[in-house]
Amino acid sequence: MADPVLVEVMRGGQVESRHGGAFAVVDAAGGVVLSAGDIDRPIFPRSAVKVIQALPLVESGAADRFGLDAEALALACASHGGEPRHVAVAGRMLRAAGRDSGCLECGSHWPSHAEAARALAAAGSEPSPLHNNCSGKHAGFVCLACGMDADPRGYVQPGHLVQREVKAALESITGHALADGSHGIDGCSIPTYAIPLRALALGFSRIGTGRGLAPLRASAARRLRQAVAAHPFLVAGTGRFDTVVMQALGERVFVKVGAEGVFCAALPELGFGIALKCGDGATRAAEIAMAALLLRLLPPEEAIATALAPLAAPVLRNWNNLEVGALRPAGPLAA
Amino acid sequence: MADPVLVEVMRGGQVESRHGGAFAVVDAAGGVVLSAGDIDRPIFPRSAVKVIQALPLVESGAADRFGLDAEALALACASHGGEPRHVAVAGRMLRAAGRDSGCLECGSHWPSHAEAARALAAAGSEPSPLHNNCSGKHAGFVCLACGMDADPRGYVQPGHLVQREVKAALESITGHALADGSHGIDGCSIPTYAIPLRALALGFSRIGTGRGLAPLRASAARRLRQAVAAHPFLVAGTGRFDTVVMQALGERVFVKVGAEGVFCAALPELGFGIALKCGDGATRAAEIAMAALLLRLLPPEEAIATALAPLAAPVLRNWNNLEVGALRPAGPLAA
Repeated sequence: MADPVLVEVMRGGQVESRHGGAFAVVDAAGGVVLSAGDIDRPIFPRSAVKVIQALPLVESGAADRFGLDAEALALACASHGGEPRHVAVAGRMLRAAGRDSGCLECGSHWPSHAEAARALAAAGSEPSPLHNNCSGKHAGFVCLACGMDADPRGYVQPGHLVQREVKAALESITGHALADGSHGIDGCSIPTYAIPLRALALGFSRIGTGRGLAPLRASAARRLRQAVAAHPFLVAGTGRFDTVVMQALGERVFVKVGAEGVFCAALPELGFGIALKCGDGATRAAEIAMAALLLRLLPPEEAIATALAPLAAPVLRNWNNLEVGALRPAGPLAA
Repeated sequence: MADPVLVEVMRGGQVESRHGGAFAVVDAAGGVVLSAGDIDRPIFPRSAVKVIQALPLVESGAADRFGLDAEALALACASHGGEPRHVAVAGRMLRAAGRDSGCLECGSHWPSHAEAARALAAAGSEPSPLHNNCSGKHAGFVCLACGMDADPRGYVQPGHLVQREVKAALESITGHALADGSHGIDGCSIPTYAIPLRALALGFSRIGTGRGLAPLRASAARRLRQAVAAHPFLVAGTGRFDTVVMQALGERVFVKVGAEGVFCAALPELGFGIALKCGDGATRAAEIAMAALLLRLLPPEEAIATALAPLAAPVLRNWNNLEVGALRPAGPLAA
């Protein structure tokens, strides 16, 4: 547990629980602006790199060939809650490529948005792969395969053209070589490659600035960021951190959560990329660490503070809506 | 983060996340049999001490006055999933005291058991306080108040007779003095008092053995343990750790989870009590640590290993049911 405590959970005036972690803030030249903990140990970024995984969809021309709009591109970068609008856009992406949900290889699960799950149950329905939080990314993979005139079947396999393109994009943008066979398998069955926080942060600095990228790639990254900024609901959903932050701050930040306590962000106006992991995998702590970093790095403007301060130090309320505690940044992130 | 790593989360052959924590195994004389981390810092035990909080219900004669059976006593010790049988028993307890769910001060939430929540929604219903995971404990508190001919209103307040009885039971059985006003507020609005793991483990050793307890209290503890052993479904629910363990091992163990990574247990045949807290509050890690401790402490019998080994090292499967990783005990708990 060498990583420092980044977040404390308070109750009754005492620290009830603690979350350790590591983070890197890196500029487009690779310089470390701010860091804590071990930023050179490879970690699985999980869904935090969906915007990088979506680059080939745009760069290959597949997005244009199938007329994918900004909503579709935002959903390709999403870990969504399975709300009706998410499901509708995923279905539309597949139809644009002449396919349907039978092509999706992500598996099915009940919407993570509790109300959406209950509404589905109340309608007597069951979840389909379109409700999977990764259905937009997978619909994008199907479009990528079809756009390259390849058979989409098996697109989750490391050897499929789709995953080879995705791996190449990850390697190139982070500057971190990914050995074949070194991957884990993600919740939605695609390979996930371990990458150090320092390299992930560099990659997101490039996503935000285009610096160090070929013009086609820089343009694809900008287009994906702008799509998400225009439709932040689609990248997550009602009440979710990523959605709330980008609804408030638009193109000034790009933030994306990943499973097991990962968060990545790009801050185009500063030229910084951020990557962090809560060592115990807790999303609640990763969110607070990200909000605290954004508050520290972005200019001291009232709109920014208003949006981010409640996310950096949320109050805990119980089932009677009584205030029983709070979470707060700690250690190197303490206010 | 002085506490050692107790649990590792594996993916793709690598450690993806790590959980630190502390635990104490204590005998009825207060001797520490096994420990790791800081066992003298007070922690909020949360719902892990419900069996202690239920002692006054039995000792006061209220349980007998209202004819509470073993099902009711098991539910009084429960953090349940809000499944129909849990809801039914809670309602029955209140009716036995001539009351109804309007007396409950725990607040309402959707059943934590996902299928139960969806079934409720499909029926066009909303959750009531009876679905609150603590409704059995609260129904027990209402019965305790009525049994002492006190007005149950305000029974969640620290100054109410009910909570004074509960606090006295906690102090006496753990041997740890609880200063007035030192409490936090729990999710269900009752006070939660911070107690060191060493003292909690001693308390559970006494719960399991009766040693050091007055005969009335020893008998009440045994009756509650036996009630839970007879109805392990009621103390948690379908597929839940506590239920699965006690369905397999019956009266040989008493285990109870608490929020924020707490677990307590009694091992009557060995005379040991166990208390542990995962420092980051993760229940997944607390479960594995508890399963690993039970496997280490209990005799090497096949039935025990069969029940506990899968809980100590569960395989992680994704939405396509592919094996993508595992959790495993680490550090002082490594096999």
